[in-house]
Amino acid sequence: MLSALDLARRIGRGELPVAAVVGACADAIAAREAEVGAFAALDLASAEQQAKVSAEKLAALPLRGLPTGVKDIIDTVHFPTSYGSPIYTGHRPASDAAIVSMIRRAGGIVIGKTVTTPFAYLDPGKTRNPRNPAHTPGGSSSGSAAAVAAGMVPIALGTQTGGSIIRPASFCGVAGFKPSFRLLPTAGIKCFSWSLDTAGVFAASVADVAFAAAAIAGRDLRVDEVANAPPRIALTRTQQWGEASEAMRAAVEAAAAAAAAAGAQVRELELPAIFEEASQAFGTIQSYEAFRAYAFEYDDHRDRLPPRLRGLLDNAAAITPDAYDAARRVAKRARQTLNQLATDIDVLLTPSAATAAPKGLDFLGTPSFNRLWTLMGAPCINVPGLNDADGLPLGVQIVGRFAREKTALAAALFVEQAIAR
Amino acid sequence: MLSALDLARRIGRGELPVAAVVGACADAIAAREAEVGAFAALDLASAEQQAKVSAEKLAALPLRGLPTGVKDIIDTVHFPTSYGSPIYTGHRPASDAAIVSMIRRAGGIVIGKTVTTPFAYLDPGKTRNPRNPAHTPGGSSSGSAAAVAAGMVPIALGTQTGGSIIRPASFCGVAGFKPSFRLLPTAGIKCFSWSLDTAGVFAASVADVAFAAAAIAGRDLRVDEVANAPPRIALTRTQQWGEASEAMRAAVEAAAAAAAAAGAQVRELELPAIFEEASQAFGTIQSYEAFRAYAFEYDDHRDRLPPRLRGLLDNAAAITPDAYDAARRVAKRARQTLNQLATDIDVLLTPSAATAAPKGLDFLGTPSFNRLWTLMGAPCINVPGLNDADGLPLGVQIVGRFAREKTALAAALFVEQAIAR
Repeated sequence: MLSALDLARRIGRGELPVAAVVGACADAIAAREAEVGAFAALDLASAEQQAKVSAEKLAALPLRGLPTGVKDIIDTVHFPTSYGSPIYTGHRPASDAAIVSMIRRAGGIVIGKTVTTPFAYLDPGKTRNPRNPAHTPGGSSSGSAAAVAAGMVPIALGTQTGGSIIRPASFCGVAGFKPSFRLLPTAGIKCFSWSLDTAGVFAASVADVAFAAAAIAGRDLRVDEVANAPPRIALTRTQQWGEASEAMRAAVEAAAAAAAAAGAQVRELELPAIFEEASQAFGTIQSYEAFRAYAFEYDDHRDRLPPRLRGLLDNAAAITPDAYDAARRVAKRARQTLNQLATDIDVLLTPSAATAAPKGLDFLGTPSFNRLWTLMGAPCINVPGLNDADGLPLGVQIVGRFAREKTALAAALFVEQAIAR
Repeated sequence: MLSALDLARRIGRGELPVAAVVGACADAIAAREAEVGAFAALDLASAEQQAKVSAEKLAALPLRGLPTGVKDIIDTVHFPTSYGSPIYTGHRPASDAAIVSMIRRAGGIVIGKTVTTPFAYLDPGKTRNPRNPAHTPGGSSSGSAAAVAAGMVPIALGTQTGGSIIRPASFCGVAGFKPSFRLLPTAGIKCFSWSLDTAGVFAASVADVAFAAAAIAGRDLRVDEVANAPPRIALTRTQQWGEASEAMRAAVEAAAAAAAAAGAQVRELELPAIFEEASQAFGTIQSYEAFRAYAFEYDDHRDRLPPRLRGLLDNAAAITPDAYDAARRVAKRARQTLNQLATDIDVLLTPSAATAAPKGLDFLGTPSFNRLWTLMGAPCINVPGLNDADGLPLGVQIVGRFAREKTALAAALFVEQAIAR
């Protein structure tokens, strides 16, 4: 994999031309794209041109010209944006999404659009897991996770409504960062659920996602040059613990043990019942909003929707405003409870997914360990580094307090380093 | 003006064909559009066709085939959508905004796009005030307010980031309803500020906006058939009272006196200092988010932006994330204070605008009496019915508690009826 932070440093010191990084990406894409299928659209020639013409200007900006992949649910003028659906084949948005302009402002080069599952739901796309092409990369940010895992780009953008960043990051063995709700703007990103959709970042390691997010958001989020004090961690099994594979449970416990051995305070935390209610409320909120956000596609192109999304929307029609309002009240209560809960801890440690990447491309895994945290709006990081007996990645998830991104990222870095020891 | 509720009832009873309503709209448009300039795009032929072909189906749905105008900041497949800017002349979105599909689901016919000021900010569009064409209709939902005031449509959609629904409704003498934040989805609406943008409705009277919003949202919001108990009203002058004209102050006091005479409990409420802080925070939040939401337009088409918006964005570049975060914290504290404030009252009564519609088209009036309530996410209604000595409308504003739309609408109806006596 390509470390965004390492490349940025070398470009910044004048040791590495931006064009060489574009070249490295092009090489990896040439070597692996046919097998992995991470991209929905790609323009290496334009990236090479930008790297040549604007090398100096780019090298002075925070992202230093680093090639970036953008999930194809995010509008771009330069690339077709199909939202993973034949309804939008060849569609050219009239403007870039806010976050795409922010990448350019930060000095990133968008080299292509990464595959999204259709409308960011659970029907599969074409992408395969670079760690084992017989397995799913997860979704919905399938191409972004796979492109980083295959060394095709140092940075890729994704979005998460349920578990669409953390789960594919876990399956592909890369770092994934879903910031607090609305830290990164979603204007120009196809809306699935306006209370849940969250933009985020994939990169090789925790320090890399922190670097990329800091550069894009223009915020103090980097964790690579701070003295990293041992965090206070709560191992949180959640009501879904029984759904996790033995290997995943062992991975989370191993991460907790490694963190403790490295000096972290680790204790267990059982979540109050309101969080189980909130996990249920998630589905109501997502479906109610999707039935409206995807109203045009459902009303005008229902027969061209893939089966799982169509099924979701068919069922969503019956959800009443009262049920939706009640679900939102549960979510609000759970958020308030979370804010007051265990103020003596910095972050939660919990699985990133129920299992390693399932075999085959059809089943993308379940977001059962992600939905609650997306609904809470809390920052989540997938920490890579552990594998199962077959060599497939098992990510562990660090969940921080709302708007405390840096604390969460620092704790994730600590766990990542502890695991690596 | 065309009463949506009255038309819907007559269509529902089989007394009035949908086509006749489209015809009435076409007549008003023929008579006044050249002078008023409410529309950016119009397709009466298609509306007539729909009214003929689908008359029975439409008449059975909540909106009963009523012609509706849609602000041109809202994406439509059938009509060009230019966001009021030459950057997007002739732009055809690939999908309808969620709320457009919701209008169609409810049985409304979209007959055209109403003029928005460029990107919904303070640079003027072409629209004139139907009550006196030498005066501004206000903005940014200029065409929607004017189209309803001129009897061209019974219902029009608008959006409000600062005061873009309530102010033009006040200036044009129509009812305007800005619901609680996110009651109506903004997916497919050009984003100005994701914390503030709110979709809402214009119609002839309070009962008409309640009817239209109820039909579109599929919620129990109608107030035309309930026994309307006298509300508990707090006359709230706010720190901006000194900015209001004498005529506006007299109008608000007259509305309070009329409501009291009709049996309402009316008392005065002075807002705590946090709300003045929040009014200041509004500008920081709007600018910070606009600099990102309009990043593509600013970065790629800066010289084609109108001067006021360009100025806003020029200044916005310097706002730091820390300043933005601090402003959001102030807003949150103010929302919490508002929730706990004066729980013995139902609604606030306050000016809808500082003055009647200013003369000329260049100055759209200030949103000084609207920004705070948009930031609070509270439901706001412009109650029409009062005029100044020159016959120009002076609207008074009812502000409800978050998510208590029906209480707010019922109180607004009460005040409207009291004024009419």
